[in-house]
Amino acid sequence: MPTNGPLFLGIDGGGTTCRARLADAAGRRLGEGAGGPSNITTDLPRAAASILEAARAALAAAGLDDGAFGRIRAGFGMAGGNAPREAAALAAWSFGFAAQTVASDADVACLGAHGGRDGGILILGTGSQGAALVAGRSVTVGGWGFALSDGGSGAILGRAAARRALTGHEEIEPASAFTRAVMARFEASPPRMLAWALKAIPRDWAELAPPVFEHAAAGDPVASALLADHVDEVAALLDRLVELGAGRIALMGGLAAPTRPHLPARFDAVLVEPDGDALDGALALAGLGSAR
Amino acid sequence: MPTNGPLFLGIDGGGTTCRARLADAAGRRLGEGAGGPSNITTDLPRAAASILEAARAALAAAGLDDGAFGRIRAGFGMAGGNAPREAAALAAWSFGFAAQTVASDADVACLGAHGGRDGGILILGTGSQGAALVAGRSVTVGGWGFALSDGGSGAILGRAAARRALTGHEEIEPASAFTRAVMARFEASPPRMLAWALKAIPRDWAELAPPVFEHAAAGDPVASALLADHVDEVAALLDRLVELGAGRIALMGGLAAPTRPHLPARFDAVLVEPDGDALDGALALAGLGSAR
Repeated sequence: MPTNGPLFLGIDGGGTTCRARLADAAGRRLGEGAGGPSNITTDLPRAAASILEAARAALAAAGLDDGAFGRIRAGFGMAGGNAPREAAALAAWSFGFAAQTVASDADVACLGAHGGRDGGILILGTGSQGAALVAGRSVTVGGWGFALSDGGSGAILGRAAARRALTGHEEIEPASAFTRAVMARFEASPPRMLAWALKAIPRDWAELAPPVFEHAAAGDPVASALLADHVDEVAALLDRLVELGAGRIALMGGLAAPTRPHLPARFDAVLVEPDGDALDGALALAGLGSAR
Repeated sequence: MPTNGPLFLGIDGGGTTCRARLADAAGRRLGEGAGGPSNITTDLPRAAASILEAARAALAAAGLDDGAFGRIRAGFGMAGGNAPREAAALAAWSFGFAAQTVASDADVACLGAHGGRDGGILILGTGSQGAALVAGRSVTVGGWGFALSDGGSGAILGRAAARRALTGHEEIEPASAFTRAVMARFEASPPRMLAWALKAIPRDWAELAPPVFEHAAAGDPVASALLADHVDEVAALLDRLVELGAGRIALMGGLAAPTRPHLPARFDAVLVEPDGDALDGALALAGLGSAR
């Protein structure tokens, strides 16, 4: 039930979706909501709008409205939140909340996954990022965005799929059922594909990732080769997290489940299920429970 | 010497530079000039501005000014010129010329390289594209831009170099003298690199390609691996051009010379020096010599 006391808002902002969870000071979940893409290095104003959208949806689910903004202490775990300039700009954004703290999506996921204890996470979503708390010290791996980084992510895998589908279509490399299925999305027309690509954001590229897993499972050689490259990228990130001292690592994000069965056996001893989700971590970042 | 007769303007518009050559009806070269980036799928208004810049520079070199625009028949060979919508938009652009025809940069390069006879070209510039005239029929390979295509280009090689430098910096993959040299351009700071990458256009990525050749020549293992992937991409494009019937192929663009020594011996019999350059082809597209 809404009260007049302080409220805590956790935000988990990814490249595709922005999720929000509202809780009271006792940790009771009051409502959840969602908004649009919210990578702050890709498009900060859009990310801010998505935060507002998700926050209002969570408030509405709790029977509250904008009038409650002044009671809210918010924690933002954002894709791109490791970019200092954009993180500072978001921290200064005028939402009307009583307080707000910005961290990376990986930081809040790590907080949520291990309840503040040592451990690592690897987010395999639209983008990717590794993070770990090692002897209380926070370390990150990757997370520098679609152009420079994001190995093992849906956007990178999807773009590789699109590029490979096109070389198949042009017979520069062998075609397959998979490359034809990707091209069929664009009516087998490179100009149509190009028109799409010129406007595609990471979320759009990531839509081409799930078919890679499906076609690889059916034995398609091109999809299998793309999946093998994807698994190599994920394994390199996991190896680095282990090297940095992460003794337990939780995979998170939409590609965690489909990728897990393909990972080398050396990770069986280190991979664990997360205790809580990124929204739990974002609520902790907002200050929930820190006084208890 | 300027006359009052018709003038022919050839434009070779690439992702980094736009070049112009002015000739009279007898084929005499009156002047040349250059302008900025001119990929019509990346930024059409900017490409049009670069064409104007290059055209005015060529006119100035010939002692002429905008007053001569009405005498000009122009041929535009443009990066991105195989995208139908953008090509049509450029063809309709109000420059004030008497006539203008648009083709891809590859088409005019092919016209210039083989003097209108059968043969192929592979442009390895900021972007890449293959094209060939086979029994009088025009075919193209690749050329669908930085996101989807451009294998073997400077932008693709440069982006791969940047990504690999960053995984080296983060110790996700082994570092080397090459990865450290790339990172040094960004003061070894991933946030600085990210700020650059968020604004980088293909021309900017392509600036990271020449160091790959230099460090590979010095035996750097990372640069050598990047070069091997680059050579594989170029070889796949050449094989496809041969398969399509190109009996002689001219390599063009800034990466042609550094790439050539690394290509497999099977291409020795097919690779030739071009008869003329893309500007010669663009002048032919404009109509120069077609009545002779």
